[in-house]
Amino acid sequence: MTNDKLLFASDYMEGAHPALMRRLLETNLEKTPGYGQDGYSESARAKIRAACAAPEADVFFLVGGTQTNATVIDAVLRPWQGVIAAESGHVSTHEAGAIEYGGHKVITLPQREGKLDAAQVRRCVDAYRGDENREHMVMPGMVYISQPTEFGTLYALAELEALSAACREAGIALYLDGARLAYALATPGNDVTLPDIARLCDAFYIGGTKCGALFGEAVVFPKRGFVPHFFTMVKQHGALLAKGRIAGVQFDALFTDGLYLEIGRTAIEAAERIRAALREKGYRLAFFAPTNQIFLLLDRARATALQEKLELSFWENPDADHTILRIATSWATTKEDVDRLIDVL
Amino acid sequence: MTNDKLLFASDYMEGAHPALMRRLLETNLEKTPGYGQDGYSESARAKIRAACAAPEADVFFLVGGTQTNATVIDAVLRPWQGVIAAESGHVSTHEAGAIEYGGHKVITLPQREGKLDAAQVRRCVDAYRGDENREHMVMPGMVYISQPTEFGTLYALAELEALSAACREAGIALYLDGARLAYALATPGNDVTLPDIARLCDAFYIGGTKCGALFGEAVVFPKRGFVPHFFTMVKQHGALLAKGRIAGVQFDALFTDGLYLEIGRTAIEAAERIRAALREKGYRLAFFAPTNQIFLLLDRARATALQEKLELSFWENPDADHTILRIATSWATTKEDVDRLIDVL
Amino acid sequence: MTNDKLLFASDYMEGAHPALMRRLLETNLEKTPGYGQDGYSESARAKIRAACAAPEADVFFLVGGTQTNATVIDAVLRPWQGVIAAESGHVSTHEAGAIEYGGHKVITLPQREGKLDAAQVRRCVDAYRGDENREHMVMPGMVYISQPTEFGTLYALAELEALSAACREAGIALYLDGARLAYALATPGNDVTLPDIARLCDAFYIGGTKCGALFGEAVVFPKRGFVPHFFTMVKQHGALLAKGRIAGVQFDALFTDGLYLEIGRTAIEAAERIRAALREKGYRLAFFAPTNQIFLLLDRARATALQEKLELSFWENPDADHTILRIATSWATTKEDVDRLIDVL
Amino acid sequence: MTNDKLLFASDYMEGAHPALMRRLLETNLEKTPGYGQDGYSESARAKIRAACAAPEADVFFLVGGTQTNATVIDAVLRPWQGVIAAESGHVSTHEAGAIEYGGHKVITLPQREGKLDAAQVRRCVDAYRGDENREHMVMPGMVYISQPTEFGTLYALAELEALSAACREAGIALYLDGARLAYALATPGNDVTLPDIARLCDAFYIGGTKCGALFGEAVVFPKRGFVPHFFTMVKQHGALLAKGRIAGVQFDALFTDGLYLEIGRTAIEAAERIRAALREKGYRLAFFAPTNQIFLLLDRARATALQEKLELSFWENPDADHTILRIATSWATTKEDVDRLIDVL
Repeated sequence: MTNDKLLFASDYMEGAHPALMRRLLETNLEKTPGYGQDGYSESARAKIRAACAAPEADVFFLVGGTQTNATVIDAVLRPWQGVIAAESGHVSTHEAGAIEYGGHKVITLPQREGKLDAAQVRRCVDAYRGDENREHMVMPGMVYISQPTEFGTLYALAELEALSAACREAGIALYLDGARLAYALATPGNDVTLPDIARLCDAFYIGGTKCGALFGEAVVFPKRGFVPHFFTMVKQHGALLAKGRIAGVQFDALFTDGLYLEIGRTAIEAAERIRAALREKGYRLAFFAPTNQIFLLLDRARATALQEKLELSFWENPDADHTILRIATSWATTKEDVDRLIDVL
Repeated sequence: MTNDKLLFASDYMEGAHPALMRRLLETNLEKTPGYGQDGYSESARAKIRAACAAPEADVFFLVGGTQTNATVIDAVLRPWQGVIAAESGHVSTHEAGAIEYGGHKVITLPQREGKLDAAQVRRCVDAYRGDENREHMVMPGMVYISQPTEFGTLYALAELEALSAACREAGIALYLDGARLAYALATPGNDVTLPDIARLCDAFYIGGTKCGALFGEAVVFPKRGFVPHFFTMVKQHGALLAKGRIAGVQFDALFTDGLYLEIGRTAIEAAERIRAALREKGYRLAFFAPTNQIFLLLDRARATALQEKLELSFWENPDADHTILRIATSWATTKEDVDRLIDVL
Repeated sequence: MTNDKLLFASDYMEGAHPALMRRLLETNLEKTPGYGQDGYSESARAKIRAACAAPEADVFFLVGGTQTNATVIDAVLRPWQGVIAAESGHVSTHEAGAIEYGGHKVITLPQREGKLDAAQVRRCVDAYRGDENREHMVMPGMVYISQPTEFGTLYALAELEALSAACREAGIALYLDGARLAYALATPGNDVTLPDIARLCDAFYIGGTKCGALFGEAVVFPKRGFVPHFFTMVKQHGALLAKGRIAGVQFDALFTDGLYLEIGRTAIEAAERIRAALREKGYRLAFFAPTNQIFLLLDRARATALQEKLELSFWENPDADHTILRIATSWATTKEDVDRLIDVL
Repeated sequence: MTNDKLLFASDYMEGAHPALMRRLLETNLEKTPGYGQDGYSESARAKIRAACAAPEADVFFLVGGTQTNATVIDAVLRPWQGVIAAESGHVSTHEAGAIEYGGHKVITLPQREGKLDAAQVRRCVDAYRGDENREHMVMPGMVYISQPTEFGTLYALAELEALSAACREAGIALYLDGARLAYALATPGNDVTLPDIARLCDAFYIGGTKCGALFGEAVVFPKRGFVPHFFTMVKQHGALLAKGRIAGVQFDALFTDGLYLEIGRTAIEAAERIRAALREKGYRLAFFAPTNQIFLLLDRARATALQEKLELSFWENPDADHTILRIATSWATTKEDVDRLIDVL
């Protein structure tokens, strides 16, 4: 059931990293309790706490990204609060209204390279507080960001520190969506570590689905007890995995011998080779991103031609004549795949 | 990380059936599109349609049972409607309010052996229709049942036909939760087949999590187009798997060479041996169930003693002196496990 | 547009008590700020605090009963909690699923004369706490009762004290729906006063709609700050009245010169005359209620005959041969109405 | 409890128009059935159908604007749909998240003078339909506008016709919020009549609260049966008035002898006198609006000074040095009020 086209559409086209598959196989017929109460999940939680230098953290394993965002945001916000996000944020655009389904408004602010900055958050909170009608309005209760962003860009440590300070001043939570966090961590020049994130955010998730697992996202609340009854909220959101250990075994493997910190490197190196080739061949990028995603700005005819040979991801049509297509590499991208892609380009 | 106790607490303690693991491994590094658009999912859907003799059916793969119930019920009901369920139904008791989180009332009716009957449904619908205040009330819009029930019992074909007829007369949907459907299908004396279910229900799911898969439930709407925009509803409920093919590969394997129809047999045979031993040793059952679950009625001291050697599932305390514990077998239960269990008993 | 039939169907068939209409007229063209920030609302709040001997209470004016129940319950409960109610409770039956629309389960318990008792609440909370699956279940977070109940019966002070003690021990809120509270307060033998309610409940509402106002319910939280951001929750629930003073003026009048404590007396006296006449004429009551509602148990033919001359309220059909009809008196019921009713009976 | 300041903060500071109060008094002690089943409500519905030239219309009386918007939008949209609104729309800003509480996203588009245009709607719908990820997105299912807009401006008939055509082409509903509709109808130059609105919209409401009633909004669905079970949805949203006839009597009076078409005239004339005086005295307007609202752009010091003598409505701080204050006139504004205001200015 393979496809003749060269596939660079996304970073979730393969199964799991071989180390994870091996552990799933080795443990397959063991019996463990369900719902994440097993030893593998416990071990994975301990390793994640250690990797985040957050010894008190509450850690939970959920299945997918939209589910995780919807559950965490709904669990942290009170009913009168909304979540601030970039207008390009995943929760703003591509979650089919999952946040609103949970009863909360996404308060969108303009993005710059997919990012929010501390000044924007301050202005938004101040505007709310200074508004005489604020009791008729949705109160900002959280800031949602992602690392990397939807545009594949990265927050620098200084930016994240400023955002965190703004949130703490305002008394609102900072939540980081790390669906592709492994790729951020493997990007040369990235200066934001897992302990930084745990120190600066109130909640975040370490992505598994796009970073080497069959599925799974590890939610981390650095401060113990930050969200009461989160387990029940996970169940209520339909996000509780019966065989929780399937996620536990995978995250245990991802956090053994530093695999999670390494796993993105292949993808980043592949992306850098592709970017170099694109530069050489005169392609235009819609915007620059240093991680595992590349956004090509193409005229329509060219886009159509490329799509005959390549499976890329449609991003958007910025105007009537152009199309933006996304190339994504992953931990599984091979040198041969990249060679063939460069040939096609 | 194994446990010295003999584990008979549930049917989701192991990973996946070896045939599924093998296919996951074989396909692991293939690239496929996400969200169930891959060839394995398509193949699994075709096989499920064939097994159900429902060539027009819409089939979707979700992750877990509560999630599936919440998504299907919310997608089928209109806002003014609720779902009828037995007071012992999973949606009534053990889903942490997931149905109500979606805005719908669970209209509970008394159970008999975990089951509802057609007369109850008719009375409930008639009572609603005959009530002069019905416009101030929640309209019954669906009947939820499970096969086997929470009590491990089975609907006979005649019972299911009667329920289906009552629902069709009433113009409301019949939805069957098949979390443990493989065990029902493998039970001697069961006379309800997959084609019967597809013919008699408007929606059902074929359980994977408890029936040999790592996770996964196959939702079947026998009538094409029965639920518009279900894909988006799945996404909105956080139930859409990015690497949809992981579910697809598993269900493809489960529906290859009749595996799903066979996989429950080991569990049923093990349960029958255990039931025979229990009878012989004079144990009391809380109620009789022919499938893979056994409900022991024990006095407290005995229950405590047993739980030191066995990991069983707490069911309930029917009164101050007694406890009901559940023994569950599964496709993975071995002859040795059963031998040891009988020794302990 | 009057009706030839004698109307005893409900206690919300007339407009407002003349004292309220007079004040609405007198103040009609004054200008005041909106949303309950006006002086009349402030005055009404002060008078209600005084009448309840609850000087710190937060008081809000909402429009109707279902709205009030849905808003208060949603504001007090956290997402993982549900509200305990009698299976006959208004929130359980006749609010079209408004509580579930807000995401919360109504945990129904059997009623006795429309009432819950402390032992039931304790058992329900203990069952939850003792259940090993409780994290998969809806946590009881509040008890909902009404005074009078749906059956027109009254909690005695000792019963209310016991319920309150059970709730406080369990750490859950006690909420009293006082849609018809004026009739309770005016019933001979009632020993529960407004200060008792304020002392024993965490939230309650003093009904206006059925007790002399055009509309309006006064929500009282005896403990200041018990519900944060309640104003915004009221707005979000669509329950905030722009011209809040229309409710304020009415409650100000209802709590001037003890009107609220008097206003039910006419209704109770009328009901007592009717009950005496019914006894004399050999009618059967479905159950006894000492307040302004009377529940006649009639065979069908008799019920049909009566309904030709009287507009009563359909209650239910307890079996195939009988019908229960409700007679309700109100503050506006006249001696002549009662005379004519007794003639017809 | 009057206020020494001259009050021009809003158009809901008084009670009801004397004609309505008179009818409420005259009918006060009549007995009628509840929930809008009374003769006055029926008469009001008939008059509204006639005024709208919509003989088949379904008409319902709700209490307030936010409630009406939340109920209508939730009743018309399906779960996967959102409502398009101007970023300045009331549903986008000042309803405390009531639309999201109902589970729906407000899809905001930039406004021009508070308005949306047909081209924007087409682009938004086309963008959704052309997006390959649309199944992961919220589908536009309705357009929300208001007449007058939040900025006091009016849609011209040609604009409304274009919007309506765009919606019908797109197969989505057009909903018009007429909270201040009487002022639109009374504005010289307005060319949009009630029959136009009924012809061009799928749902709209005729505002009572701000247009002469104590409270109340008349929802009109020109096409009979457009929203199934709307009555139950109203109940579920807590928006059903027990004494429905209080709204019915008021709307019956508003639609007797053309009162609704006249009632805004006083407000418009007052606003025109004030605008003339402002022009003369050199005040700056934040933007021009022809209806009963005037938006003054003032430097902060001036704003503060004015607010000592006048109660105006805070609108926003467009920058650090300026404030926008709103003057609103109403059906109750007197010549003397205007004289005094002009003196103060």
